[in-house]
Amino acid sequence: MDIGIVGLGRMGLNMAIRLSRGGHRVLVSNRSQGPIDTAVEAGAEGTESVGDLIGKLESPRVVWLMLPAGQVTDDHVDEALEYLEDGDILVEGGNTRWTDTLARAERARGRGVHYVDAGVSGGVWGLENGYSIMFGASDHAAERITPVIQTLAPSPEAGWGHVGPTGAGHFTKMVHNGIEYGMMQAFAEGFAILDAKKDWGTNEAGDEITADLDLGQIASLWREGSVVQSWLLDLIAEALVERPGLKAVAPHVPDSGEGRWTVEAAIDLGVPATVIAASLFARFSSRDETQFASRVLSAMRGQFGGHPVKG
Amino acid sequence: MDIGIVGLGRMGLNMAIRLSRGGHRVLVSNRSQGPIDTAVEAGAEGTESVGDLIGKLESPRVVWLMLPAGQVTDDHVDEALEYLEDGDILVEGGNTRWTDTLARAERARGRGVHYVDAGVSGGVWGLENGYSIMFGASDHAAERITPVIQTLAPSPEAGWGHVGPTGAGHFTKMVHNGIEYGMMQAFAEGFAILDAKKDWGTNEAGDEITADLDLGQIASLWREGSVVQSWLLDLIAEALVERPGLKAVAPHVPDSGEGRWTVEAAIDLGVPATVIAASLFARFSSRDETQFASRVLSAMRGQFGGHPVKG
Amino acid sequence: MDIGIVGLGRMGLNMAIRLSRGGHRVLVSNRSQGPIDTAVEAGAEGTESVGDLIGKLESPRVVWLMLPAGQVTDDHVDEALEYLEDGDILVEGGNTRWTDTLARAERARGRGVHYVDAGVSGGVWGLENGYSIMFGASDHAAERITPVIQTLAPSPEAGWGHVGPTGAGHFTKMVHNGIEYGMMQAFAEGFAILDAKKDWGTNEAGDEITADLDLGQIASLWREGSVVQSWLLDLIAEALVERPGLKAVAPHVPDSGEGRWTVEAAIDLGVPATVIAASLFARFSSRDETQFASRVLSAMRGQFGGHPVKG
Amino acid sequence: MDIGIVGLGRMGLNMAIRLSRGGHRVLVSNRSQGPIDTAVEAGAEGTESVGDLIGKLESPRVVWLMLPAGQVTDDHVDEALEYLEDGDILVEGGNTRWTDTLARAERARGRGVHYVDAGVSGGVWGLENGYSIMFGASDHAAERITPVIQTLAPSPEAGWGHVGPTGAGHFTKMVHNGIEYGMMQAFAEGFAILDAKKDWGTNEAGDEITADLDLGQIASLWREGSVVQSWLLDLIAEALVERPGLKAVAPHVPDSGEGRWTVEAAIDLGVPATVIAASLFARFSSRDETQFASRVLSAMRGQFGGHPVKG
Repeated sequence: MDIGIVGLGRMGLNMAIRLSRGGHRVLVSNRSQGPIDTAVEAGAEGTESVGDLIGKLESPRVVWLMLPAGQVTDDHVDEALEYLEDGDILVEGGNTRWTDTLARAERARGRGVHYVDAGVSGGVWGLENGYSIMFGASDHAAERITPVIQTLAPSPEAGWGHVGPTGAGHFTKMVHNGIEYGMMQAFAEGFAILDAKKDWGTNEAGDEITADLDLGQIASLWREGSVVQSWLLDLIAEALVERPGLKAVAPHVPDSGEGRWTVEAAIDLGVPATVIAASLFARFSSRDETQFASRVLSAMRGQFGGHPVKG
Repeated sequence: MDIGIVGLGRMGLNMAIRLSRGGHRVLVSNRSQGPIDTAVEAGAEGTESVGDLIGKLESPRVVWLMLPAGQVTDDHVDEALEYLEDGDILVEGGNTRWTDTLARAERARGRGVHYVDAGVSGGVWGLENGYSIMFGASDHAAERITPVIQTLAPSPEAGWGHVGPTGAGHFTKMVHNGIEYGMMQAFAEGFAILDAKKDWGTNEAGDEITADLDLGQIASLWREGSVVQSWLLDLIAEALVERPGLKAVAPHVPDSGEGRWTVEAAIDLGVPATVIAASLFARFSSRDETQFASRVLSAMRGQFGGHPVKG
Repeated sequence: MDIGIVGLGRMGLNMAIRLSRGGHRVLVSNRSQGPIDTAVEAGAEGTESVGDLIGKLESPRVVWLMLPAGQVTDDHVDEALEYLEDGDILVEGGNTRWTDTLARAERARGRGVHYVDAGVSGGVWGLENGYSIMFGASDHAAERITPVIQTLAPSPEAGWGHVGPTGAGHFTKMVHNGIEYGMMQAFAEGFAILDAKKDWGTNEAGDEITADLDLGQIASLWREGSVVQSWLLDLIAEALVERPGLKAVAPHVPDSGEGRWTVEAAIDLGVPATVIAASLFARFSSRDETQFASRVLSAMRGQFGGHPVKG
Repeated sequence: MDIGIVGLGRMGLNMAIRLSRGGHRVLVSNRSQGPIDTAVEAGAEGTESVGDLIGKLESPRVVWLMLPAGQVTDDHVDEALEYLEDGDILVEGGNTRWTDTLARAERARGRGVHYVDAGVSGGVWGLENGYSIMFGASDHAAERITPVIQTLAPSPEAGWGHVGPTGAGHFTKMVHNGIEYGMMQAFAEGFAILDAKKDWGTNEAGDEITADLDLGQIASLWREGSVVQSWLLDLIAEALVERPGLKAVAPHVPDSGEGRWTVEAAIDLGVPATVIAASLFARFSSRDETQFASRVLSAMRGQFGGHPVKG
């Protein structure tokens, strides 16, 4: 089927290529020309602008935005809506907060355009192995875009789903990432315990036995047959084998938004999310330069004994 | 090589069978006769008692205890040590606290016996697919038992490791389970957020759009291509598909010791383990019948306004 | 000085009385007549409506809204702004989210009205002992309202402060309540540990010594000379003495918004707030009827052993 | 009554003085002579050794050890037990783990000596204002020592209690300190949020309004009339006023054992203690030089995109 891809970053370009290879007619638009040329080599058709792209799509049109979340996406939604017509479909595949999605969907609805939000996971290997895709849409729009989703996914039968109405795609992807935060922190804590463990009792002579654990070995052996086996463990094992001790790895951990939104969604819904929140806060702590909370604790302790407890 | 297995529970019996099939001479001992017969059918040799088993092993002997942690294991360690001689090897494969292991290893050392602690993961599928094994041992003992470990493991090259001195096997297995607690809780919180989510803004008419997410669908789609893919997710997906809504699943979650010990090890080492501890405490909460902490909060709130704040 | 109080709930009425007693000319407005009569007895002047109240105040006017947060406050802000004029001051003393305050302050600014947000703490005892007041305002407005603040406060010199620009009053009050959540939870956990403790080793005969701790006694003794002494401890001590065991106290703990907003502010600012968040989530848990997260954990455990770990 | 104090550190010396002033006959023993001289000036009698001290006490004797927890206390318990006789009372007032107390009490029982464990709070101001004392003892021993407890306490009627059998004193004091950890962390997080807050919307011209909050002012104003008023808040207020910004306060926060033991007791009893544990771990984090957990997170993120997710 016909599909237009707007935004040929790392994700968008590979998706365009995978769709072209999959036999779809893919039109592409991008700010710079280079990625367009690459897509064209793979079988896509280049266009001059969003308007040009939309003009060349067969009706009812399907346009897929694959852009950085925020203002850029917002601007392109508005630009696309200028050209799209009643019954067309606009898919937004960025890491967007689901509440922003609802606001944009309402703008689209005002023009009769179906708005679809797609949470896309998979990274650079998606081109080859397919993308995990969870999307929110009306039943009509879902049915219409299923052929392209099936081409993008790891297989036509698995790794994708129409998970609910518009908004549900980004919401589900957000929680997916929130879970990832918690899993990562569980591994981080566990390996930190292993890393700190040095003493193993005493030998016959009463001397302390000390030995470091080989974390790369442990992570690697868990990859086979253990109950913590997971893609994240694969990453840890490779990192620990490649860079034993991780001395050269900076201990500052960014966060990209989904963790924050997941905790805020939990608060909004009244659902306890202690572990996901603690994982988010551990990242904040890793970047906390002032360490003000610790200073407050220290300062309190410094006052102990110097101040009468009321008897 | 020769090996004696003491304790033919679910794990021990299957390990005896896997070792027999793997070409080892396996002697077995068990309280009841049934499992001995099953092992014998698979090629093992039955014995009358721990003493009998040890007497029939070629020297230097390797005896593997596969018993419930605690008093039963303790008693069998002592019984085995009565018969084992200088240079023999005693392997203990239960879910034992590593500090108990060190104490027993010291008793073994007093008799010249090498003590090996093996953390074994894999469940009923281990017979077919192999067991993840992390063990602590002297280099000498490690080398000696490697042939049986390689037979038990998923493959001779992967899924097992000599991770350090005696004690390190159970310590590593303990942390492995601590990580598992954290991962499980991250999934539990994420799916609880998805379960609670019902509203998706308003439609053209201004009516609220409500829809439940299909958690079985979401868990299943994440199994392919997503970054949270893991064995634990596989379990969740199957459970959610088989029992949608999980209404018949009791919300009381036991804990088996390793989570507690992991937090205690973290405290002992001065390593933060907020997420693993919170995961453990979430299990405690699930079984908390008195809910005394909540009553204290409620009682405090009940006093608000009825008690002067000192001006 | 002249001041108009709109909203004579428990807080507003007592504040009006305290201000009247303090020598100010207090005009009051309220939906129902009863509280107006009570205020008038204490020396205030009743009015017919917000417009009437504003018309009778000397210029530049000071109007203090003391209403439930949300729509009611919003409506009254708009109503007051219809009558207020350039240079007048509108004080809002409810438990309002500080972001809502900024939005209303902007509406006020459009009419030349100074907007002041006051966080007020103190409960029913405020009439007698004074109210803790933290407010945000321009320097001009702050100076202007200081006489009434000093009358409301525990003393003219203490228990109140102009803490920053508009918004800072509600922000500071919000964090104050967030801290309160954490303190309450610390007490709740501690007393739950004391409540669960029953065994104290063995006696000469080897029998277990068991004894409950008397929590009312412990809380009471901590009130004098201990480092946890606090107003919240006073409440706990009284509750535990009045209702030993707290059996009749429902373990369902509401939350009023400030805890949620505090965690959201922490997320927004990138500041770790693990304890405050965990305290909030403990309240959610106390009211969690579906216990879905625990069911997910249980369901996972139910699948253990029934699903092959990939070797 | 007669009482012997062994150990004239800061606490022991002041307690000896307070008891002497209170009319008791106080015998003191200490490693160095200086504090003995000071106690003697206040009315106590010096002794040469623990044996000498015990020999001079009237029977049945009461000896109070006020020594650093651990080996020193252990040694002195044994030394005292050499001289004490059937029916005598040995009080131990250090920050001892309650399980150590039970072990020592058993040794005392073997000699017919009543063992009393006293949790003592109060610091340098105890001399003047009295000490908060919670002690575990048999009823007989409790009755016998009540006169000295009443002299040490803030008042004969308040601030002290016989809270249960031997062990209960140190257990209660331990939980008291665990609660303190949680309260301190709640304050630390709250003030860190206030410290980070700088922006307050925009002014008429659309420029951002920025302003720091004055934390010393806020802490001070909360001391009067607010619901977080507490001795700990008093300390914070003084620290923030004396050292605005706390820049010179090191952000490394020690922990003294009671927090760890409280979490371990919670684990042992199966009681959730998420906030107390998180508070303990926040202290660990403040001293965490390797930051290994953060490095693991960073390393995982570094592998993202470089490793195929299994489709």
